[in-house]
Amino acid sequence: MTTLAELGEFDLIARIKARASRLHSRDVVVGIGDDAAVLRPRANEDLVVSTDALVEDVHFRWDNQSPASLGRRALLANLSDLAAMGARPVGFTLALSAPTSLTLTRIDGMLGGLLREAKAYGCPLIGGNLSRAKQTTMAITVLGAVQRGRALRRDTAQPGDAICVTGTLGGAGLALRKSGDSGSALRHLPKARVAAGRALARLKNAGACIDISDGFVSDLGHVLKASGVGAEIDLSRIPTPRAFARGCEQLGLDATKIALHAGEDYELLFTLRSLNGVRRPSEAALSKRLGVQVTEVGRVEKARGLRGLGASSSAAGFRHF
Amino acid sequence: MTTLAELGEFDLIARIKARASRLHSRDVVVGIGDDAAVLRPRANEDLVVSTDALVEDVHFRWDNQSPASLGRRALLANLSDLAAMGARPVGFTLALSAPTSLTLTRIDGMLGGLLREAKAYGCPLIGGNLSRAKQTTMAITVLGAVQRGRALRRDTAQPGDAICVTGTLGGAGLALRKSGDSGSALRHLPKARVAAGRALARLKNAGACIDISDGFVSDLGHVLKASGVGAEIDLSRIPTPRAFARGCEQLGLDATKIALHAGEDYELLFTLRSLNGVRRPSEAALSKRLGVQVTEVGRVEKARGLRGLGASSSAAGFRHF
Repeated sequence: MTTLAELGEFDLIARIKARASRLHSRDVVVGIGDDAAVLRPRANEDLVVSTDALVEDVHFRWDNQSPASLGRRALLANLSDLAAMGARPVGFTLALSAPTSLTLTRIDGMLGGLLREAKAYGCPLIGGNLSRAKQTTMAITVLGAVQRGRALRRDTAQPGDAICVTGTLGGAGLALRKSGDSGSALRHLPKARVAAGRALARLKNAGACIDISDGFVSDLGHVLKASGVGAEIDLSRIPTPRAFARGCEQLGLDATKIALHAGEDYELLFTLRSLNGVRRPSEAALSKRLGVQVTEVGRVEKARGLRGLGASSSAAGFRHF
Repeated sequence: MTTLAELGEFDLIARIKARASRLHSRDVVVGIGDDAAVLRPRANEDLVVSTDALVEDVHFRWDNQSPASLGRRALLANLSDLAAMGARPVGFTLALSAPTSLTLTRIDGMLGGLLREAKAYGCPLIGGNLSRAKQTTMAITVLGAVQRGRALRRDTAQPGDAICVTGTLGGAGLALRKSGDSGSALRHLPKARVAAGRALARLKNAGACIDISDGFVSDLGHVLKASGVGAEIDLSRIPTPRAFARGCEQLGLDATKIALHAGEDYELLFTLRSLNGVRRPSEAALSKRLGVQVTEVGRVEKARGLRGLGASSSAAGFRHF
């Protein structure tokens, strides 16, 4: 099998460039191939920047998932960060380090998955860097744009805000435990909630927002800490996937715990308020607006700390902030 | 000695955040600590993005330079890319992977050098990612801004353009060979020519531009190839540092070869033209304008290929494109 050593750096760059240049964007004036990429910001937009890295043997293994799925995953956390800011994707850079023994099959598969995912979100590869290393690392920096001053933040939750989540929680956590694999090789990758985040950023009622990568409780904790507030959560309202309780039971798992603490679902957690007489939309209206099921699960409170209401709150293992 | 393992990820992030937040910028609306950073582009500016990575045992070793110097180097190539585009620095992200055995002394020293360099160029750290790994890697993505449509490119050289370089060439190559160290631990790091690049981007006469990281001939080759042109170089005009010829002689090195092919000087190579009656400035006027010595070393020609004029042209080992 052809390896990176046989292909050589310049051939690999040419290969990536040829594949990446198929995706055009009116935001990009100069793409791959110069000293730097050039983007043209649109009027009245702010620019959003986030960086995330996947490291071999830490975040992934080559042998328990397809290279294409790995490529998709490499972009997922970044796109989800854009979603949490309410931004549309503009482009991304890739710093790829890999052993010279890495096969072309794996590299091509990974790049294919990455670039397909990028295309699906309208987020072209605009530059990057290649280097050899002992283990494969994909460090991605993604750029997005959002209407000026409308970026969703963590530190803007206010007492009285409703706390909402998109989609369902716990599905990724259960799937991981089902596969008995700690290498987090999810068979069905979650989607980054980019469209929902953009719709949310357009709502005047929007408060704070974060994506749930670490787990509901942990990520809500980031919002509460940054905003200097507390919250009360109705545990009976935490939305979970179909057959989730039974699935957990079969594995002897505490369903509430998985839903509240397992990460990797990449749903959005956000707050909403009634504003100057503009009442906040109903769950149904919100779900329509955001294009995804929205569930109200609690309320922001002035008193610090996180309180869970409901039968299984003791099992939930809430940490108090 | 305290290691990364003992410190823990969150403490390290808090440490970096505390140090990074000392540098403010009016371009940055949200810095480290949210899902993503938010930048506010100024009117009529394009945004410039470049990524570069330093990998332990590939690009550097910890034991032949100070951690602070390593931190400075990590930003140098990125800032030089901005310079080559004529852009002012806006901010950067850092994806840092490191073994858990890495000492706090090294991390702190490295971060100190990195953030001092960032401050000197007005380029705040706006976000990043931490991960453990087998070897230390610093993947940096830098963002810059340039007047709309004025970014300097590689593909805009035209027949008749004068070819110029800033500063002197070969100094870094000679220093590396003097130290007898292939780990590229330069005692005196070059400066990124950011101010010169910005001044150049404001000149109507400016043509193409690239920074000399690989070596004069190699980087000129990138410009010629991208622009579909050739060039004639007067080898006797290649500017070298004081006492360079003697230094090379003492080591038995071919001075012309070092000046033309050694990299790491991070000077700018650019082309200039007379335009609609606006004659291109003299070397003296240019040097004043760019704040650094500028030397005219050749001319862009229609016929492809690179021709070196001068006694030692055979020693220069020109590749022809």
